[in-house]
Amino acid sequence: MRIADFHVTPIAIADPPLLNAAGLHAPYALRAIVEVVSDDNIYGVSESPGGADVLADLEAVRALVVGRDPFALNKIAQDIETHFGDATSGDRQYMRTTIHSRRAARVFGAVEVACLDLIGKAIGQPVCNLLGGKVRDRVPFSAYLFYKYEGAGGQLGFATDLGATGWDAARQAAALTPAGIVAQAQAMCRAFGFKSLKLKGGVFPPHIEVDTIFALRQAFGPNTPLRLDPNAVWSVETAIRYGKQLEGALEYFEDPTRGQAGMAQVAQAVNIPLATNMCTTSFDDIPGSVRLGSEHIILSDHHFWGGLRASMELARICRVFGRGLSMHSNSHLGISLRAMAHLAAAAPNLTYACDTHYPWQREEVIVGGRLQFDDGDLIIGDEPGLGVELDRAMLARLHENYVQCGLTGRDDEAEMQKVQPGWKFMHTRW
Amino acid sequence: MRIADFHVTPIAIADPPLLNAAGLHAPYALRAIVEVVSDDNIYGVSESPGGADVLADLEAVRALVVGRDPFALNKIAQDIETHFGDATSGDRQYMRTTIHSRRAARVFGAVEVACLDLIGKAIGQPVCNLLGGKVRDRVPFSAYLFYKYEGAGGQLGFATDLGATGWDAARQAAALTPAGIVAQAQAMCRAFGFKSLKLKGGVFPPHIEVDTIFALRQAFGPNTPLRLDPNAVWSVETAIRYGKQLEGALEYFEDPTRGQAGMAQVAQAVNIPLATNMCTTSFDDIPGSVRLGSEHIILSDHHFWGGLRASMELARICRVFGRGLSMHSNSHLGISLRAMAHLAAAAPNLTYACDTHYPWQREEVIVGGRLQFDDGDLIIGDEPGLGVELDRAMLARLHENYVQCGLTGRDDEAEMQKVQPGWKFMHTRW
Repeated sequence: MRIADFHVTPIAIADPPLLNAAGLHAPYALRAIVEVVSDDNIYGVSESPGGADVLADLEAVRALVVGRDPFALNKIAQDIETHFGDATSGDRQYMRTTIHSRRAARVFGAVEVACLDLIGKAIGQPVCNLLGGKVRDRVPFSAYLFYKYEGAGGQLGFATDLGATGWDAARQAAALTPAGIVAQAQAMCRAFGFKSLKLKGGVFPPHIEVDTIFALRQAFGPNTPLRLDPNAVWSVETAIRYGKQLEGALEYFEDPTRGQAGMAQVAQAVNIPLATNMCTTSFDDIPGSVRLGSEHIILSDHHFWGGLRASMELARICRVFGRGLSMHSNSHLGISLRAMAHLAAAAPNLTYACDTHYPWQREEVIVGGRLQFDDGDLIIGDEPGLGVELDRAMLARLHENYVQCGLTGRDDEAEMQKVQPGWKFMHTRW
Repeated sequence: MRIADFHVTPIAIADPPLLNAAGLHAPYALRAIVEVVSDDNIYGVSESPGGADVLADLEAVRALVVGRDPFALNKIAQDIETHFGDATSGDRQYMRTTIHSRRAARVFGAVEVACLDLIGKAIGQPVCNLLGGKVRDRVPFSAYLFYKYEGAGGQLGFATDLGATGWDAARQAAALTPAGIVAQAQAMCRAFGFKSLKLKGGVFPPHIEVDTIFALRQAFGPNTPLRLDPNAVWSVETAIRYGKQLEGALEYFEDPTRGQAGMAQVAQAVNIPLATNMCTTSFDDIPGSVRLGSEHIILSDHHFWGGLRASMELARICRVFGRGLSMHSNSHLGISLRAMAHLAAAAPNLTYACDTHYPWQREEVIVGGRLQFDDGDLIIGDEPGLGVELDRAMLARLHENYVQCGLTGRDDEAEMQKVQPGWKFMHTRW
């Protein structure tokens, strides 16, 4: 089997005005749909973060993908690493650096998932079976709560809203107070059945976000796991002060401060497991994490760690070094969600409910439309590959949205400035 | 696909009187041939270290293997770990300890390789493609040199010698001096084409072994990589003193002393990369290795690290922590050799020539007989699975050897005492 063709289709998906430490989500989030097509005309698909830089990187590796055996993943990875790390490419940015290896990991991850989907379809096996098989059939996800302005994102004529889910009004509603977040959480859990709650923080002064956590605890009771993610914009002192107030109330405290050294200080001082997808985000960061003890839990993300097999290797590293393993998310559609769920089904130690932005989106590019959660879980069956087929009409519409929306990258700061002129991102805000 | 049957066949293979720090090889080495048979009657095979304890452990997991999907490797591993770690099993030895996890890894490794062979045969793919595909077609092996007494092992009527290879006389010959080792190396390299030389040390006083290395360097020139393995019976002081003499002469210095702390001292003092298959031999040992800096190169062995996929995870850990990766061997036949070669073909950073005892054996259990090295390399093609089929007549004869030889485990000390009465193994001899 050879890869005869490689397609990259940029799409834009409606995204609500969600607030975070970097600013505000634009009305559209950018994704890329990657397809590898075999010489016997089977296609494998993956979903990647989008934007002009990702598209350029994906195009740049086309010749390293077309003509290859989809099983030859180690070699393709090596070639992609060499491509981005090749000092003779004439582009100084392509020098072998951490940035290089992160770009290589991101591009290879997109190619690898598409190849695994193709292989799975070709041999009639689900992707999780290419990762050693599932240890669980049900993958729990958490409710990802955001402070937000009113609105649900999207504004073009190509809206492809897939209709009511029972939570449309709450998705539309503003949530700018503890009570607003509680209402959002209740609506989301009612609609999807999630059993864990994660609040994206770093938006309001810490005492408001701590109050929000206690309001959630009041509303949901002490047995609902809660997580707070200040997105690294709290100082070490702030993280320790408010962290101490949160002891006993959080399942984990995600990136309360910036950098491994600061995280290690917070880890020493606060009796809550620390989680990260900001201070330990690539294999290059693992030695520092081990040396400093910067976190207890790593939030994996196959889009950034180099695919599903690399994420299984990360899972082993977490077992070896006593780290827990959970999962990070960006705005995404169902192809990413299925890939995340196959990984989570296979990784023995991925025992936390995974993050997902999925309820915030309302479009889909897969046949059958929006994926359904069963009591908060995604169920992984025996469907070959990722278990998805592309809806090509919808893909074309979402691609048209990409063309029309005019966005080429994510810039939450610029988006925020439309609402709050002069607003500036700060590495440490509080 | 389900595993309908599980066979474990103990065999004994002729093994020459090779000297090492633990004593002397007995006339037979024990191996176990493990088969998983699918409900559609495809079989997958692996080769494991043998002996009564291994056989008991393999038998003990039969119910965890039969009836399972061979793709369900993560779950089978988890169940085997639970089995050996289950404190309620009533056997205190089965408590969750390092020994438990090593037993679980050894048993699971044997099951996993057989399942991967079965999967590969079922889907028409070589095992390396189940590990992400090969990054090299040719896997180089090294000449594994031993001080030895005269003889080639074996003594029963069931000898199954597969005939002349051009090195039979040298395999038979004693090698108890530097000149004897040089002659052995020359004969072995002439017959197999190996380009690297490894000397099993820890047998004679260190100055003799150092002299042997310099005799090899004299005979083969400075471009032939040399390795010395004192099997951890040198003191830290001895390892440093003789290590300094060997600077510039060794590709790597394997387990010069015992334990991670001692190895770290030698690593600090001697300017030769240290390799190990004795101080860092399981995932449980990795944190200590990282903390202490006990070696530069880890010698993987899928038989002990929990199979081929776990070995790929080890390969990632080596990349992350700047460790080189090479490969350890015990006395073995071609099923193990093929599994080793598939792993070495797939692991991007397994860039050293691998160890193998294979030239010391002269029997086989696979159709077609002894595997051939091509200029020191094993070539991995596209044959499904491991690319081997069992020769059932030969398997029966080697099993009969097992029954007849009366050995139930490896005891190099007892064997040595037959030659040197009163000889005792010493943790640190020099």
